[in-house]
Amino acid sequence: MNVVSLAGGIGAARFLRGLVRAVDPASLTVVANTGDDLAIHGLHVSPDLDTITYTLGGGVHPEQGWGRAEETFTVAAELKGRYGQPDWFTLGDRDIATHLVRARVIGEGGTLTDATRTIASAWDLPFALLPMTDATVATRVRTSDGRELHFQEWWVGERAASPIDRVWLEGGEDARATDAVVAAIEGADLVVLCPSNPVVSIGTILDIAPVRELLRDKPVVGVSPIVGGRVVRGMADKLLPAVGAEVSAAGVAGLYADFLDGWVIDTADAASADAIRATGVDVAVTDTMMVDVDVSTRLAETAVGMLGTLQAA
Amino acid sequence: MNVVSLAGGIGAARFLRGLVRAVDPASLTVVANTGDDLAIHGLHVSPDLDTITYTLGGGVHPEQGWGRAEETFTVAAELKGRYGQPDWFTLGDRDIATHLVRARVIGEGGTLTDATRTIASAWDLPFALLPMTDATVATRVRTSDGRELHFQEWWVGERAASPIDRVWLEGGEDARATDAVVAAIEGADLVVLCPSNPVVSIGTILDIAPVRELLRDKPVVGVSPIVGGRVVRGMADKLLPAVGAEVSAAGVAGLYADFLDGWVIDTADAASADAIRATGVDVAVTDTMMVDVDVSTRLAETAVGMLGTLQAA
Repeated sequence: MNVVSLAGGIGAARFLRGLVRAVDPASLTVVANTGDDLAIHGLHVSPDLDTITYTLGGGVHPEQGWGRAEETFTVAAELKGRYGQPDWFTLGDRDIATHLVRARVIGEGGTLTDATRTIASAWDLPFALLPMTDATVATRVRTSDGRELHFQEWWVGERAASPIDRVWLEGGEDARATDAVVAAIEGADLVVLCPSNPVVSIGTILDIAPVRELLRDKPVVGVSPIVGGRVVRGMADKLLPAVGAEVSAAGVAGLYADFLDGWVIDTADAASADAIRATGVDVAVTDTMMVDVDVSTRLAETAVGMLGTLQAA
Repeated sequence: MNVVSLAGGIGAARFLRGLVRAVDPASLTVVANTGDDLAIHGLHVSPDLDTITYTLGGGVHPEQGWGRAEETFTVAAELKGRYGQPDWFTLGDRDIATHLVRARVIGEGGTLTDATRTIASAWDLPFALLPMTDATVATRVRTSDGRELHFQEWWVGERAASPIDRVWLEGGEDARATDAVVAAIEGADLVVLCPSNPVVSIGTILDIAPVRELLRDKPVVGVSPIVGGRVVRGMADKLLPAVGAEVSAAGVAGLYADFLDGWVIDTADAASADAIRATGVDVAVTDTMMVDVDVSTRLAETAVGMLGTLQAA
């Protein structure tokens, strides 16, 4: 069974630790958001690709959920202390090695897809990891006081302190999903949406043509990133209103209404199951708090298991 | 008095520590060789510019004479261990910060001259430091067994183990000295050649048009890199034969015959002074072993002091 999973960063990576146990990873393709990518110190930084790689490769900082374990910050200290470079987005030394490998591959004429393959191979990832596009795109936000910022400047630089009233993918209209992404989705027996931010992670991937269109012809099961009407991590609660959606399991499912077939929600949101089913989406209710890899695995099994129900229906 | 100094790496940097005491550094321009520059891990590494910057800025590794003091190698260990990248040219973490600043400036459309200005400013260098050219050039060597290598591959990668029969500057014919270099030399009252490798440091700068031609109209004093018929450091003894020159103070002076006015040689080579004078070059004999900054300062004073003799002649 060929499975494609659409993924953001931390939440996706934790879910994928289960998904690689729930399905044959050799038949799994993970398509990651690159809207958060940024150029800093001349390097191409891909936060979601790296969080997935480090987590599934066994090198992630365990508490943080992103960045490298046993990280040091000598380069960053020098960039700041000696060269007065901005340090709102701090890169660790081990992490910089990854960005240098990516910069080299791209500098030699390769694509982000090529660089991602090189890096994933070094980490022995058992599945195919693909950036959603090789085009340069950037998620941007407008704060309610009228400033326009790169998503990372708002999210990391300002810790999302300002409310925002608009979020969009710069370059998204001209960008296309790579041939590899299109082929993977076309060949998929099931598409799984990780419990990632529905606006700036999954939503961004959906913005890249022809992803959303392709999903309408495929069985698609998603895992809700909402638990008890609140976001588990990140700041989707600040982003959902900017796209006119309610911060709830039903609200997020509504964003996927045109293609979603199955939706896995937390037991804390069980009360909304019937309302979601009424929209024509099958619902499974389970524990979605991925405190360890066993929970992640059961959650992934639940999501993948919905395919049987969908096919029987 | 405006002084321009042509410089390579370690020997030049040690000499410049004296030259900034012998002349007003505000009127000093140092033109550095970039033939040894290399692209590695997607970064632009400029060994001579960096050795001069770190030495005069007070951050050089004191015993080594190049690279940073208190250096760490976390990025390099990761590049090698995790990503299997070649490690024949190892970059330290602090050093990488410099290369990232350079890469950023160039990536944003700046020149190597711009990047050098940014870096030199961060180190509070009291003189103007200029790369000889903004063009991409590369010193290459042919070993006597017929292999063609980048100079650094031979010098650092193979520790100059193979004899060479040819050395040349790839891209040198099309490269031009920057406007800043031309203006500095045109405005110079004195040009001082640092005791650097006459083939791959000074020789390379001379290969960049119109440097050599400009020097013919200027008072030029050089400091011999030869002591007692041997090179003080580096492997000029392997390079001089490849350009048909003798490994001696007179042999090196002969390479500069068309423009050299004064030549400072070591007391160990005093016996060759008359032979050099017979070629029309004034000679000063002194201690050239720069064991400390006082020796460097006296050596620089001797070199600069030759201008008076030349003008009186």
